This record gives sequence, C-alpha cells and structure tokens, in this order.
Amino acid sequence: MALLVQKYGGTSVADAARIRHVAERIVACREAGNQVAVVVSAMGDTTDELIALAHSIAANPDPRELDLLLSTGELVSCTLVAMALRELGADAVSMNAAQAGIRTDTAHGRASIVALDPKRVRRELDRGRIVIIAGFQGTTADEDVTTLGRGGSDTTAVALAAALGAERCEVYTDVSGIYTADPHVVPEARQLFEIGYEEMLELASYGAKMHPRAIELAAWYHVPVLVAGAAGDRPGTLIHDLEDPSGGEMASMGEMEARNRVSGVTYERGVARITVRAVPDRPGIVAAVFEPLSEANVSVDTIVQSASAERLTDVSFTVAKTDAGAALEISRRVAGEIGAADCVSDTDLGAVSIVGTGMQNAPGYASRMFRALADASINIEMITTSQIRITCIVAEAHLDDAVRVLHAAFELDKA
Amino acid sequence: MALLVQKYGGTSVADAARIRHVAERIVACREAGNQVAVVVSAMGDTTDELIALAHSIAANPDPRELDLLLSTGELVSCTLVAMALRELGADAVSMNAAQAGIRTDTAHGRASIVALDPKRVRRELDRGRIVIIAGFQGTTADEDVTTLGRGGSDTTAVALAAALGAERCEVYTDVSGIYTADPHVVPEARQLFEIGYEEMLELASYGAKMHPRAIELAAWYHVPVLVAGAAGDRPGTLIHDLEDPSGGEMASMGEMEARNRVSGVTYERGVARITVRAVPDRPGIVAAVFEPLSEANVSVDTIVQSASAERLTDVSFTVAKTDAGAALEISRRVAGEIGAADCVSDTDLGAVSIVGTGMQNAPGYASRMFRALADASINIEMITTSQIRITCIVAEAHLDDAVRVLHAAFELDKA
Repeated sequence: MALLVQKYGGTSVADAARIRHVAERIVACREAGNQVAVVVSAMGDTTDELIALAHSIAANPDPRELDLLLSTGELVSCTLVAMALRELGADAVSMNAAQAGIRTDTAHGRASIVALDPKRVRRELDRGRIVIIAGFQGTTADEDVTTLGRGGSDTTAVALAAALGAERCEVYTDVSGIYTADPHVVPEARQLFEIGYEEMLELASYGAKMHPRAIELAAWYHVPVLVAGAAGDRPGTLIHDLEDPSGGEMASMGEMEARNRVSGVTYERGVARITVRAVPDRPGIVAAVFEPLSEANVSVDTIVQSASAERLTDVSFTVAKTDAGAALEISRRVAGEIGAADCVSDTDLGAVSIVGTGMQNAPGYASRMFRALADASINIEMITTSQIRITCIVAEAHLDDAVRVLHAAFELDKA
Repeated sequence: MALLVQKYGGTSVADAARIRHVAERIVACREAGNQVAVVVSAMGDTTDELIALAHSIAANPDPRELDLLLSTGELVSCTLVAMALRELGADAVSMNAAQAGIRTDTAHGRASIVALDPKRVRRELDRGRIVIIAGFQGTTADEDVTTLGRGGSDTTAVALAAALGAERCEVYTDVSGIYTADPHVVPEARQLFEIGYEEMLELASYGAKMHPRAIELAAWYHVPVLVAGAAGDRPGTLIHDLEDPSGGEMASMGEMEARNRVSGVTYERGVARITVRAVPDRPGIVAAVFEPLSEANVSVDTIVQSASAERLTDVSFTVAKTDAGAALEISRRVAGEIGAADCVSDTDLGAVSIVGTGMQNAPGYASRMFRALADASINIEMITTSQIRITCIVAEAHLDDAVRVLHAAFELDKA
C-alpha cells in the first residue's frame, strides 16, 4: 500500500461539479489501494477576491490580518472536497494547518515552513481515512495563522509528502504535464515523461505550472513529484532525481548512450537591455550600478560585463520591458556619478533558452544552438549560460522563430 | 477604565462602508477610555451562502466539515474589522476561537462552550490593543473547529464578557433596542430603557433581536447586556438584574410604588389549535397523545387540559399553522387508539401575551387583560400563564387589535 499526497489547484476545485470530479479521482486512487492525503488550493479566484475585499477596507492591510483572511479560501475548498468524498461514501476528514501540524515562522504573507509534524494526518490515514488539508497556510508557535505566499499550496503538498515519507507527490493542475516547449509557439511540442528537478525549475513556465519554491523543496528531500492534468487520464510528467549520464563513473556509458540532454526550449518575451558604456573598470563599480536598481525594486535578469579595454568596460543587463524606463533613468544617473560615457537601451528583445541536465559537461550543445539560430538568420544580442541552461537574447520579432528552430534542431519532437 | 465587550451582527458588517462605520464606533469607545473586546458575526448573508455552497456538494454535509466551512465567515469579518481599525490608527488584533480560548464540546453545528480561557485576549487588551474575536465558533480539545448554532455570536460575546469580568456586554444590531410591542402593530410602542433577563426572553422577538440562549447565559453570570442599534446614537435597552418590588421583604414597598409590572406585549401569528375530545381520563393518556407528535417533530406550544367530567377530558394544544395538518392526522390516529371521541382543529388563531417580572405575585394583571379584550369584543379561546407571562389565544383576525388594546390598557405608551 503506497502513501500518496495529491494536490489540486484552484481551477480544479473552482465549482461544485469540478469538486465532485476531484472527489471521484481521489476515491479511485484510494480504491486502487493507496493511502491518500490531499492538499487543496482555494476555489478559482477566491484568493484574489479576498485580497480585493481587504483593499476595499485598507490601503495596506496588516499582514497578520490579511493572512487570517486569506486562509479562509482553502478552508472552504478543503471542507467542500471532504463533503464531496463523503457523498461518494468515502471516509474523509479535513484539516486546517494547525491540525495538520504545519508550523511556520512569523513572516506573514510569505511564511516559511519551519516544522511539519504530521502525526494527526498519519493517525487519520492509518484509520483508513482520506485526509484533506488546507494548502497555502500554517500556524506560528503563537497560534497565529500565516500564509506561505504564491506557490504556497504546492509547497504544502511537497512538505507534507516529505514529512510523511510519501511515495510520491501528485500535483494536479489544468494542463497535463511539462512540455518540451510552449505548444502555442511550437505545435510539435511534446509532453515529457520525466524531468530532473533542476530542469523543471527552468521549464516550469510551460505546461503544468509548479512554483519553483516547491520544486526546490522536492529536490532537497528527493520527493518524486508527478505533475498532471486534473481533468483527463494522461500520464503527466514525473519530476525526480535523474541520473546525469555524464556524471562520475557513468561518464563513458553516458557518451555511449548518446542521450539527448536537452529537455526543452523556453522563452521570455518583453525583455529590455540597458547598456552602461565605457564604465571605469575599478572595484565596486558594478555594485554602484546595481544597488540603486535593487533599491528601486527593479529586478535584473541577465548581466554581461564585456572584457575590459583600456580600463573601460561595458556593462549590459536585461530587465522586464515594463521596468525599462525606470532602469534607464536610474542607470543614467549612476553613469554620471561614476564617470561612465552614457547609457543606451533596447526594449524589443526576448530570451530563448535550451534547458537540460548535464549539458555543460557535454560539449557541442552551445555551438549547435548558435549554429541553428545563425542558419535562421537570427542575430544573437547576448549570451548567458548556467549549469543546465544556455540563453540567447534575440530580437523579440524573431523570438517565436528561434524557439521553433531550436526545438527542431535538438529533435525535441521525437520521443 | 472599564472593560467592555461589543458585538456587531451581520448586517452591521455587511459591506466595506459599514465595517468602517463599526470601526469608528469602536475607536470612539476606546478613546472614551475603555478597554474593548469586539465579537463579530459573518458579513450579511455569508453563513446562508456557505450553507448553500455545502448543499451544492452534499445533500447532508458532514457536520464537522460544515463547521469548519461556516467558521470562515466570521474569520473574514473579524480580520476586515481589524484592518479597518488599523486604518484609523488604532492598534487592533483579530483572533480565531482557538486564540481566544473558546473551548466547546464536540456537538458540531450546535456546540456548547465548556470553557473560556481569555488569557491571550486579556494580554492583548492589557497591551492597549483592541481585540476582534470571530463569533459563533469554538474549538474542541482535539483542535476541531465547531460552531455554536444560531445565536452563536451573541453567546460568544456574553461568554467572553463573563470570562473577562467585563463591565457590560454591548450587542449592536440593526434596530435600536427592545420595544414594549412590535412598532409595526402598535405605533405608540416605546423603547424600554431597561428590562430584566426573564422579560427579555419573552420580548426578544421585537426590536433588537438577541438569542434566548445568550440571554440565559447573561442571566446566569449576571452580565449586564446593552442591546442597541449599530447605526445611530440612541441609548438602547439595558438587560440586567431588575429587583422584583413585590419579592420578599420589599413586598409592601412594591405595592407602595405601584410600579407597572408589564414591560411589553408580544404576539404570534399562525397558531393552530387541535382538540382531542372526550379522552378517557386515565394515567398515561396525555403521553399517548404527545409522544407521536414529538416523534414526528411537531413542536407543541400551549397545552390545556380541561377539568375532567365523567372520567372524560378534552385535551387542547396549539401548534404552528404549518404543522396543523400533520398534527391533526397524528392526533386522529391516536384518538382512535385511545378511545377518544374525535379530533377538531382551528387553524386561524393567534397568541397575545403581556410580559412582566413579578406580575404573578401582584393580583389584577390577568383580570385587567381579560377585561380589556372583552371590552374590545375579542373572544379568548385559550389561556396559559407562566411566571412572567399571561397568554391568550384569540382569533388571528383580532390579533393586531388585541395587541393594541393591551398596549393601551397597560399604558405602555407612557414612560
């Protein structure tokens, strides 16, 4: 008998009919011989509606009060799912965060789980019951209710799976799994059967969404996570520890297998680039550029500093297009202060990336990427690489083409 | 510095504007130098909406699940009131039932408070904070959330006032106090400045409503309760221990004061009377009549058994008009079984009562009532009396007249 933790998102429990459907799925899983603990999000847009309600009262609602308010969304959905299960004759019991033993710090609105004692959950499971837990929330040592912030319910589910030593955490959402690329851009995009945690962090924007924080927690505790669609019976994508075929003693076998290490292609529209030109190249100068941006809450993505020539360097970075105006204004001011030549911006860019575990240890992926873009006459504006990702900044007008070209070049349409 | 517990009903917190108004009232009370703990109901029709939501999922929602669901209504309103107070610059903190120390039994949907440990409420009050407590709910020893049933928020407020030793419990609602009679029937009806607990139990149907259960609790712990309108600045009615001027050694002084002991006139429409005629008068015969009614969930109000003649007696009782058909059918069956002559019903009756502490010890009230009705040519069908009430069953067509006649006869329009 396996112990499974299932998580259903807000769309899956948005109305009575969908709640009944979710209950049927849970019962099927129970009747297949599993112990089942279920984490649910608030119904549909409930959380946003509660936030709007709070803002109709207070411009800046007190975070502690807001948390108790928002926590009601998941209490409603978890009790309704439990009722639906009982209607089907299943023995189900709902639990709030206190009952489920989810203890957090006191950072209201973005609390972190500091301990999870699932003894009551386990006791109910061992009595043969299905346990439905309100996601997204916890309680402090002082019994105050907290919320975990965005991605909170996914985090609840993974944390619970880790604490219970569950065989698997199943995250059900409104699409059926993780894709090699955005199907809207690449019609040939294919659903992946499995993916590593790190790759999932990069690909989570397409297909079944899952919050990076929950993925990181799953990676840390080695919790296998199945992301799948709540509606159909498609298999979903399993996120788990993938062995790197090029790693350690397996290296030669990895080469023999000639496994395609690229899992997918991701992209991001609306990228702007700011370049501070002819910056005097001395210690502390980069901090001088980026600290004011950080203070202004401008989130900087890619940063490239060109090689220094005559003790002058160019510093380029990308920001979301919506932040470009603020970033340019701040950078111009800083450029004057630090004696840089000037600032220029380009607001019509996009980012395209190939993602895959072990790419960096296997040569040829980067050059193959650059060649494919070149063959399609797509100019590369900036390049950055990480352990599992190679990203090119290109003109936004060529972004969709770039995604399709790379999807084909790495044969992602083939299983 | 007085400690006050205030309670605001669902209408008073039905939208953002009204919540802000309530917050202003609370701040005014705080700034007048009082410590203030506030109990709130769910906004407007929230509880009914949540019940409807549950019924869209399950024909008979599990009581434990339903309680956790319903408890969210007051969590929403108490956090919003706390936010509104903070917008006004007041230091406020909301609490759920667990934090407020409200422990109940496990009778879901109609739980009783078994203990109330307000140490955290007191601690926050002593820190100068206004504490907002979710009404209508509690937690069991097992941390399960319960609801107290109808009148639950009033009960929360009174229980909290008792536990805190508050100077007064103030119940704010959508009307301004307790009236001598229904103002819709008697335009001269006057608001009472004060009333005893027992009388309040009889008069609670008019003016500011308060659940009998909460009134009984207040009487038991001698908690003075002010019922008043949340909107205006009218003084409301104070429910507290009234000395009975005719009681004990005060008897003669009571007579000297010639105090009018009638506080008000109440009525009930839609009363039906069933009479089982010529019932053999032997032990157990009345039980034989009423047990089947009880089993069929027919609530019987007034019961009158006439004096026995030739070992045959008539048993009359009143039920709500809506139950008259069922009651007649059951009574006919029973009449056959016990050898009674037959059953008749009259479905067009009403009940009119005068209410007042100490009436029973002071002669003349009953006869004055009967005389007033006779002078108005209103026939009396049945009479019952209790410690603080004399009730006449009359034709429903004469009911409003009866109320007005009695209101005038006992000079209730005069302060």
